[in-house]
Amino acid sequence: AMGRTMGLAGLLMGLFLVSAVLVSTSLRHGAPRAEPGPKPAEWEDASGAGPEDSLWPLPQWVRTSRRQLQLAPDRFQLLHGAGSSAGPACGLLQDAFRRYYELMFGQSRWRKRSRRPLGGRAEPELLQLQVVIESQHSGCHSYPHLGSSEAYHLTVTEPVAILKADEVWGALRGLETFSQLVHEDDYGSFLVNESEIDDFPRFAHRGILLDSSRHYLPVKSILTNLDAMAFNKFNVLHWHIVDDQSFPYQSIYFPELSDKGAYSYNHVYTPSDVHLVIEYARLRGIRVIPEFDTPGHTQSWGKGQKDLLTPCYNEEQPTGSFGPVNPILNTTYDFMTKFFKEISSVFPDAYIHLGGDEVNFDCWKSNPNVKEFMKKQGFGIDYAKLESYYIQNILDIVSSYNKGYMVWQEVFDNKAQLKPDTVVQVWIENNYAHELSSVTGAGFTAILAAPWYLDYISYGQDWKKYYSVEPLNFLGSEKQKKLLIGGEACLWGEFVDATNLTPRLWPRASAVGERLWSSSNVTDLEDAYKRLTIHRCRMLRRGISAEPVFVGYCAHEAR
Amino acid sequence: AMGRTMGLAGLLMGLFLVSAVLVSTSLRHGAPRAEPGPKPAEWEDASGAGPEDSLWPLPQWVRTSRRQLQLAPDRFQLLHGAGSSAGPACGLLQDAFRRYYELMFGQSRWRKRSRRPLGGRAEPELLQLQVVIESQHSGCHSYPHLGSSEAYHLTVTEPVAILKADEVWGALRGLETFSQLVHEDDYGSFLVNESEIDDFPRFAHRGILLDSSRHYLPVKSILTNLDAMAFNKFNVLHWHIVDDQSFPYQSIYFPELSDKGAYSYNHVYTPSDVHLVIEYARLRGIRVIPEFDTPGHTQSWGKGQKDLLTPCYNEEQPTGSFGPVNPILNTTYDFMTKFFKEISSVFPDAYIHLGGDEVNFDCWKSNPNVKEFMKKQGFGIDYAKLESYYIQNILDIVSSYNKGYMVWQEVFDNKAQLKPDTVVQVWIENNYAHELSSVTGAGFTAILAAPWYLDYISYGQDWKKYYSVEPLNFLGSEKQKKLLIGGEACLWGEFVDATNLTPRLWPRASAVGERLWSSSNVTDLEDAYKRLTIHRCRMLRRGISAEPVFVGYCAHEAR
Repeated sequence: AMGRTMGLAGLLMGLFLVSAVLVSTSLRHGAPRAEPGPKPAEWEDASGAGPEDSLWPLPQWVRTSRRQLQLAPDRFQLLHGAGSSAGPACGLLQDAFRRYYELMFGQSRWRKRSRRPLGGRAEPELLQLQVVIESQHSGCHSYPHLGSSEAYHLTVTEPVAILKADEVWGALRGLETFSQLVHEDDYGSFLVNESEIDDFPRFAHRGILLDSSRHYLPVKSILTNLDAMAFNKFNVLHWHIVDDQSFPYQSIYFPELSDKGAYSYNHVYTPSDVHLVIEYARLRGIRVIPEFDTPGHTQSWGKGQKDLLTPCYNEEQPTGSFGPVNPILNTTYDFMTKFFKEISSVFPDAYIHLGGDEVNFDCWKSNPNVKEFMKKQGFGIDYAKLESYYIQNILDIVSSYNKGYMVWQEVFDNKAQLKPDTVVQVWIENNYAHELSSVTGAGFTAILAAPWYLDYISYGQDWKKYYSVEPLNFLGSEKQKKLLIGGEACLWGEFVDATNLTPRLWPRASAVGERLWSSSNVTDLEDAYKRLTIHRCRMLRRGISAEPVFVGYCAHEAR
Repeated sequence: AMGRTMGLAGLLMGLFLVSAVLVSTSLRHGAPRAEPGPKPAEWEDASGAGPEDSLWPLPQWVRTSRRQLQLAPDRFQLLHGAGSSAGPACGLLQDAFRRYYELMFGQSRWRKRSRRPLGGRAEPELLQLQVVIESQHSGCHSYPHLGSSEAYHLTVTEPVAILKADEVWGALRGLETFSQLVHEDDYGSFLVNESEIDDFPRFAHRGILLDSSRHYLPVKSILTNLDAMAFNKFNVLHWHIVDDQSFPYQSIYFPELSDKGAYSYNHVYTPSDVHLVIEYARLRGIRVIPEFDTPGHTQSWGKGQKDLLTPCYNEEQPTGSFGPVNPILNTTYDFMTKFFKEISSVFPDAYIHLGGDEVNFDCWKSNPNVKEFMKKQGFGIDYAKLESYYIQNILDIVSSYNKGYMVWQEVFDNKAQLKPDTVVQVWIENNYAHELSSVTGAGFTAILAAPWYLDYISYGQDWKKYYSVEPLNFLGSEKQKKLLIGGEACLWGEFVDATNLTPRLWPRASAVGERLWSSSNVTDLEDAYKRLTIHRCRMLRRGISAEPVFVGYCAHEAR
C-alpha cells in the first residue's frame, strides 16, 4: 500500500525524493520568468524531449533511468498481476487496458506496416504491464467518491512493469502516467525509460464545471471533455445542467420541464444520455455531480412547472414576469421533494450541487403574499432570511435521500444551517482567501473555484495565472487547511458551445489540473511550459483539439 | 448596369430607399443599447425571423414583399439567363451554381424523403434563378482584382428570379445573397419572399489576414476559411505566409528555405497547395495577396539561405545570432530578385505584400560592416535611412515584375520612396485616424487594420467594438477619403492554429465584413445582433464552426 497509507518512513523518503527531483528540475530549467518573448528557445517542439519532460500533471515523485526498453505493439500486454483483487471480471480495468493500448499504439505508423520483429535494436523488451489492485474492495463495480484512493506505485523494469494501487481509481491514474511515459521514436519504435513513480493527488476534489444551459452541449462534446479530464487526472465533472436560459434535463417525473424549458426538442438530455455520461465518467474514475441551482437561476423551470416561480408585482399588479422559486408555497416543496427524489436516484454520486447563488430579492420584495409571509415568520425585511428558509427546506429534502450537498458560497454567507459534511464552493474572486478562512473556520469543507473561471478569456498565456494560484494561501490552522479539499475550473457557457468548448478549456484547464494534483512546490513556470506544450501535443494526437500554448507546432497537428 | 455606373437619379433613389429601409429597421428594433444582459429577448433564436432579418452583410438596399414563393429542390434551377456574356463554358459560375444549390438544399430533410409534389401549399413556385453577366468581359477565366465590379441587382418574382451583374464577381455576391433569402420552414418546404435587392460594396478591399508562420495552418483550414469569407462577402485573403518562426512556403528556386526553415517536412505548402488555395479563392471571388515580410521578421529565412541575415556583433565579435536581412550585400539583392520573380509568377494577384514592419536596428548597429556602409552612404546614424534604402531596392525589384505592392505603415513613416499605387496598411492602434490622414494626405492608398486585430481576445461581445468602427472617421478631404479603399481583420497566429482558428475568427470577423460592405449608416447594434445570430447559425449549418454570439441555440448545432 502507498499514498495515504504510507508509513512515516515512506513519507520522509517521499519528501526527500520529491525535493531531489525538484532541485534537478530547477537546475535544468533555471528560475521561472515572466511572459516569454517570441524567442527560439521558447518555441514548442515536442521532439527530442526526455520521457520525464512529458508528464502532466507531474507525479509526486519520479525516478527515471537512461536505460530504455522497447515495446512491441503486437506482443505487449496490459494485464492483471498476481495477487490482484481485480481480474477479467473487472470491466472497468478491461476497458481501461483496451483504451490505453489504443492511446499508446493505436494511431501510429506501425499499424500501416506488416508486423515485424524489433528491427535489430539493442534495447531490451518490456513485455507486460501488470496491474495489481491491493485492496479487497477494488472498486471495479462501484462509483468513485470523495474518499476513493487514487494513489499508485509504478515500476518500469525489464521485462515487466508493475502498477500497484489500492483501488482501481489509482490504477486508472497510473495507466495514464504509464501511457505518458511511452513514446514513439523517429523510426516508429515504442520506447519507455526504466522508471519508478510514486504518486497520489494533493487534493481529493479536482473538478471541471460545464454549463449546458446557456448553450446546449451535445453529449459527444461532454464525452470528449471526459476523455481530456482523464488525460489530466481530473476526477469531478460538475454538471451545471440547467439554468435560467434552458432546461435540457429530461425529467422522468416532470417531463414538461424540458418539453417547455429546453431550447428545442433536440436540445435535451434523455435519461439514457445522462446514464451514458455517468458511466463514461465512471470508467475514467470521474464523479458526476449534477447542479440543480435554486431558488435563483430558475427562469427555465417556470415554463414547465406552474406556480413554481414567484410572480413579480408592480404596485399591487402582477407584471407577468417571474422571479426566483416561490419559497412560501407548500406546492413548491412538494415539487422539490419529488424532483430531488428523482435526481438522487438518477445520479449515483453522494453529492448533489444545490446552487444557491446570486438570488435577486427584487421580485420577492414586490410580491404582497411574500411580504405577508415574511411578517408571519418574523423575518422583518431581511430577505436573506427568506432565502435561508428556502434553502434549509431544500437541504432537508436532499438530506432525507442520504445525499450530501454542495452549495455556492452565498448559502454559507447567508448563514443557512448546513450539515457538517456540506461542501461550500467559493467562487467570488474578490477576497476569496478571506472567504476560505471563514468557511473552513466555521468547520465546513471548501472547494475553490474563484481564480479559475476559464470563461473569462484574455490575450496571451493566461494558464500561468491559473497555474500560479496556491489554494492553501489563506489564513487558517492546519485543520482549516485540511478542509480545503480541492478546486474546480469553471467554463460557464454564455459564450461557449460545441464550436469552441474544447480549445477554450484545454490546455488552460490543464494548469489547474497540475495545481490540484501535484506537490505544492511544483511551481516552475519554465518547466511547466515545456511539459505543457508536449502534453498539449499529446492531447491533439489523442483527438482533443486543445489550443496552442504559444508559437510552435506538433508532429501530429489537429485533423 | 448598376452600382458604380448608376446615374445620379439612381444614386438618389438608392439613398432614399436605404434610408427608408433603415428607418423601418430602427423602428422595429429600437435604439442601439449597451451590452445586453441575459434577458430572454436577447437570446439567439433563429426561428420565426423574417427573410430580411437574416441578411449579412446588409445589402445597400432591399425591398421585400410578404408574398412568398416556394422552391422545389428537384425542379429549381440556377442557370445562365438570356443575353448573359457567360454560359456553360464559364466554369466559375457553373461551380458556383452547384455550390449554392448544395448550400440551399443540400443538408435538408427533403433529401431523406422521396421526391414529392409541393405538398398542397398555396404559394406559387419559383422555378429558376437566371444569372445574367452584362459586361462583355465577364471575368469567368480571370482573377478578381482591386477594380473588379462586385455590384449586382437581384429581383425575385414569380416564376423566375433574375440576378444581373457586370462581372461574375458581382454574380457571386448576388448568389450568396439569394441563398441567404431562401429559408426552410418547419415542414421542410423552401420559401423565398418576393424581393428586389440592389447591392454593391462600400469598400473595394475587404480582407482577412491569416498567419501560417507562428503556427502552420493545414490547407483544409485555409479552404474552410475561404468558404466563410465568401459567406461574409470578403474578397482578399492576406496570406502572411512566412515570418521569424517558420517558413512553410516551398520555393521552387530555393527549396532549402522550407527544407530548413519550416517547422518540419510536413509543415509546408507545396506549389500545388498554393495553387489550390489560389484557385479555390478565385472561384469565390477572393484575391490571394501573399506577404513576404522583410527585412525584419525573417529569422526562418536565414536557416536555408546563407548570408541573407545580418550577423550580430558583441564588441567586435560575431555573437552567432542574426538580425534583419543584410541590406549591404549585393548577394541579398541577387537573392531577392530571383525570389520575387518566383513569387510574382506563382501568385497571380497584381499586389504583393512586402511587409516592412517592426524592424529592430540593434543588430545592424552592432555590425561593423553595416556601420561602415552607413558612413559611405552618408546615412549618419539614422538607421531608418538604411531600412528605406533596403526597402527601396526591394520595391524596385518587385516593380520590375509589374507588380504593385502593399506595405505596413512603417515603410511610409520612414519615408521610403513609394510608387503612387502603393497600398499602405495602417496597423498601429494608437492614433490610427491620424495615420490615415497622413497616408492619404500624401496621396497614397490606405487599408485599415488597426482596430481589427482579432487575435486580441477579451470576454464578451467584442464584435460590437469592431462593428462600431467608422473607417472614414479621420481628418481629410473627400479625395483623401476615397484613398481609403478598405480594411482587414487580422488573425495573427501566436495563439491560433487549426484547433481554434475558425471559432476565434467567426463570427467576430463578420462584424468587420458588414462594416466594409454595407452602407455607413448601417450601425444599429440591436438589428445587427439579431441578424448576426441568425447568420452565425447559417454558418454552422454550412460547416463553419463559428462560435456563439451570446446565449442561445441553433436549430442545427455544430456537428
